[in-house]
Amino acid sequence: MSNSTSAMVELMAFQRQTEALSAVAGRLAWDQETVMPRGAAEQRSEEMAAMEAVLHERRTDPRLGEWLDAATPESDREARILELIGREFARASAIPADLATEMARLTSLAQGIWAQARANDAPGDFLPTLDQIVVLKQDEAAALVAAGFGGGDAYDALLDDYEPGMTQAELEALYAEMRPRLVSLREDVLGAENPPAALEGRFPQEMQLRLARACATAFGYDWNRGRLDMAVHPFSSGRWQDSRISTRVVEADPFNCIYSTIHEVGHSSYELGIDPDHAFTPLGRGVSMGVHESQSRIYENQMGRGRAFTGWLYQRMSDMMGGLSVADADAFYRTVNRVQPGYIRTEADEVQYNLHIMMRFDLERDLISGRLAVDDLPEAWNARFLKDFGVAVDRPANGMLQDVHWSVGLFGYFPTYALGNVYAGCLNEAMRAAVPDLDESLARGEAGPGVEWLRENLQRHGGLLPPRELVETATGAAVSPEPLLDYLEEKFGAIYGL
Amino acid sequence: MSNSTSAMVELMAFQRQTEALSAVAGRLAWDQETVMPRGAAEQRSEEMAAMEAVLHERRTDPRLGEWLDAATPESDREARILELIGREFARASAIPADLATEMARLTSLAQGIWAQARANDAPGDFLPTLDQIVVLKQDEAAALVAAGFGGGDAYDALLDDYEPGMTQAELEALYAEMRPRLVSLREDVLGAENPPAALEGRFPQEMQLRLARACATAFGYDWNRGRLDMAVHPFSSGRWQDSRISTRVVEADPFNCIYSTIHEVGHSSYELGIDPDHAFTPLGRGVSMGVHESQSRIYENQMGRGRAFTGWLYQRMSDMMGGLSVADADAFYRTVNRVQPGYIRTEADEVQYNLHIMMRFDLERDLISGRLAVDDLPEAWNARFLKDFGVAVDRPANGMLQDVHWSVGLFGYFPTYALGNVYAGCLNEAMRAAVPDLDESLARGEAGPGVEWLRENLQRHGGLLPPRELVETATGAAVSPEPLLDYLEEKFGAIYGL
Repeated sequence: MSNSTSAMVELMAFQRQTEALSAVAGRLAWDQETVMPRGAAEQRSEEMAAMEAVLHERRTDPRLGEWLDAATPESDREARILELIGREFARASAIPADLATEMARLTSLAQGIWAQARANDAPGDFLPTLDQIVVLKQDEAAALVAAGFGGGDAYDALLDDYEPGMTQAELEALYAEMRPRLVSLREDVLGAENPPAALEGRFPQEMQLRLARACATAFGYDWNRGRLDMAVHPFSSGRWQDSRISTRVVEADPFNCIYSTIHEVGHSSYELGIDPDHAFTPLGRGVSMGVHESQSRIYENQMGRGRAFTGWLYQRMSDMMGGLSVADADAFYRTVNRVQPGYIRTEADEVQYNLHIMMRFDLERDLISGRLAVDDLPEAWNARFLKDFGVAVDRPANGMLQDVHWSVGLFGYFPTYALGNVYAGCLNEAMRAAVPDLDESLARGEAGPGVEWLRENLQRHGGLLPPRELVETATGAAVSPEPLLDYLEEKFGAIYGL
Repeated sequence: MSNSTSAMVELMAFQRQTEALSAVAGRLAWDQETVMPRGAAEQRSEEMAAMEAVLHERRTDPRLGEWLDAATPESDREARILELIGREFARASAIPADLATEMARLTSLAQGIWAQARANDAPGDFLPTLDQIVVLKQDEAAALVAAGFGGGDAYDALLDDYEPGMTQAELEALYAEMRPRLVSLREDVLGAENPPAALEGRFPQEMQLRLARACATAFGYDWNRGRLDMAVHPFSSGRWQDSRISTRVVEADPFNCIYSTIHEVGHSSYELGIDPDHAFTPLGRGVSMGVHESQSRIYENQMGRGRAFTGWLYQRMSDMMGGLSVADADAFYRTVNRVQPGYIRTEADEVQYNLHIMMRFDLERDLISGRLAVDDLPEAWNARFLKDFGVAVDRPANGMLQDVHWSVGLFGYFPTYALGNVYAGCLNEAMRAAVPDLDESLARGEAGPGVEWLRENLQRHGGLLPPRELVETATGAAVSPEPLLDYLEEKFGAIYGL
């Protein structure tokens, strides 16, 4: 074997084990959120820290640098694998060990402090900790910039971890294009006469879970490689042969359970849909948070909340409940897509969701750049919310304390949600053109043809192509917010008689 | 800090992380047996292999040798910790990394192959894999013998992993002492007139699980640090703040579910009962498989199948079912302790159980020594079963395919079950003397005073004392099979009117 070949072989074997260990850490996190006994919290945090220490040591192992230098790729695929390993190695190596340790310690504490502050509606209890986190993230960003990440820009260096290659300048331009049409649509919708009715009644847990399972099956969830459990915050977890989903049940709101399930099926199916040849390599994961979100959102919204699928859902729910409070499938479709003023991002409808994201995007950039002091965040949040949504935040738990992200150090993550919606818009346009009879299937409770198209054109590639290139290859067109905006205006224009 | 002190500090920190990672590997195994999607088997075997490789690397880390050389213990506790780490280091270092990795990979796969073969009653589907496992175990034993384990004896070198300090010669002598009285008791019992009646009826799964939970609670299981799930082969898993149990349900035989639950509660409670100061050290685990089994068996049999506790159980079951097929609590007690010919070790009564173990002990010693070829195992099993139990095995699932142990590489493990029964006999004698009114509590469904005595005198010490010394310190007497045999003859003599 040449030096290059042997370096490649050793590197791939080492990486394979790292990927397996990373999957173990993910499985442990799943356990913690679903089945772990309550009294095991301290022990689990020590177990997680031990796994993190092992993974960090491997991701910064000096042998990685040597292998990367010596290995010569013999295919585009190998070149991409080397690129992804090299990127992870460079990022992990750029961050001083002390900083990484302090960040892990602080964010682990901060999560509890944030949860308590939110429960007590007391932002002052959280701000000093958030201030420390922002300082550490600024240090982390500076270290990454010094190592060449983010093209000299601190926020971009952080963003790059979730959406490789994306910049705040591009997002700014994208959002500037979206905002006027979203704001205008939102105003028209909220001012419309005869808005859809709410769904009345209480829906027993067992029935909701049965429906959730039926929906997951309708969207092609592979039960042989997954399972559904209950969790406080729905999530998906795992890859390759084992990607699990979770949901929650609110008796008065069955759509919470049903659509969070379909959303997580989108995430899990992306991971399960990746070519098995990519398993245990860096190609064997969703390529970015934005692309990941595009899958969860196109399952949930463009397919799941469409007239065709909700028609099938109406019949199932109506049969199970012996009738519903809405008159027929058309009324049910309008109810599913009801737009209402609200404070909470995770409960926002398709029309308003991206406006929540834009607000967080601007605030977190100001925090990282230092233009906004953490102490001034509550006021800045409330002022911005009033400006964007025309409503004053009634309590901090419905304001700046609503999301967990900043408490665990996720800065640069929020904008990928809106980007995912934009990608979903592009993909939906292409998918509908390629599968003209998709709605006929969805009306029978079968998302198969859509899911197949997504798997074939996007999911199976895993990390093989960079995010934007992946989406553009799948759609055959440049990424643009137009398809999403057109879709929203058409859909909600019809529902609200605009 | 002196060199010795700093070596001790570094060693303890390193070991702490190893213990945490070992707990993670155990949790992963739990996941595999209870909740893992069926299609994840291959991936899981690679994950387990990766964890095993990390653990093996840590257990053979050359720094361990340096720290062990430099550290001077300042207490008996420290000396024992160093002894246990040193022992594990020596054992792990003796086994080549390739062999350890291959064993982890193969046994993870083999479990599924065994389960499938058992389901299909097709030993031929499992034998080639078992053959590979035996070869690996022979290699492992040879490597251990070369490193000085087992006093030159291959089987003893394996046995030592489960029951440190025990030898096959000692077990042979012990079993030789037990066998005549067990055989004689078995013959008398099976020949007795008016044997106890079977319990008639079908007992719904939900009811059995409710009973199982009530029994676990009666035996002091800490639900805040544990949980109960279903598994094909009931087991307990985990330690410190998280030790879980599993059970299975056979609708026609509620005792299967109830007593497997109490059995696993014994195992888990041992781990949960260890002094929390020992957590994340080698003292924080059950000291041997024999001692472990003594706890599960004394919970299950000497307490759980006694007249007092079965009286309480009779009332609960009778209330739940609206009456039972047996006349009263006395008849129920006899039914619970019914001795019947049967193929399955895990379903065997107290009289016959140890005879099953003696048979496996002899067969597996012959496999490891090479006196018996794996291909000849089905025939050897059936011949021996006919000789010991007077019945021909009707199908492989009731013969050599019934136990999971060999498929996961557990050779030298079986004999610790009978040793556990012997220890349980000794402990029961001492416990009854120390807690004379235990039966009054058990009759109220409260095993508390017995459980407390066991925790105080045995469980809390964890690995502080070697197995036999631990039992002898708890009982104040030399280990002997007499108390067990006396107990069995008295109990079953009375039940069967001998």
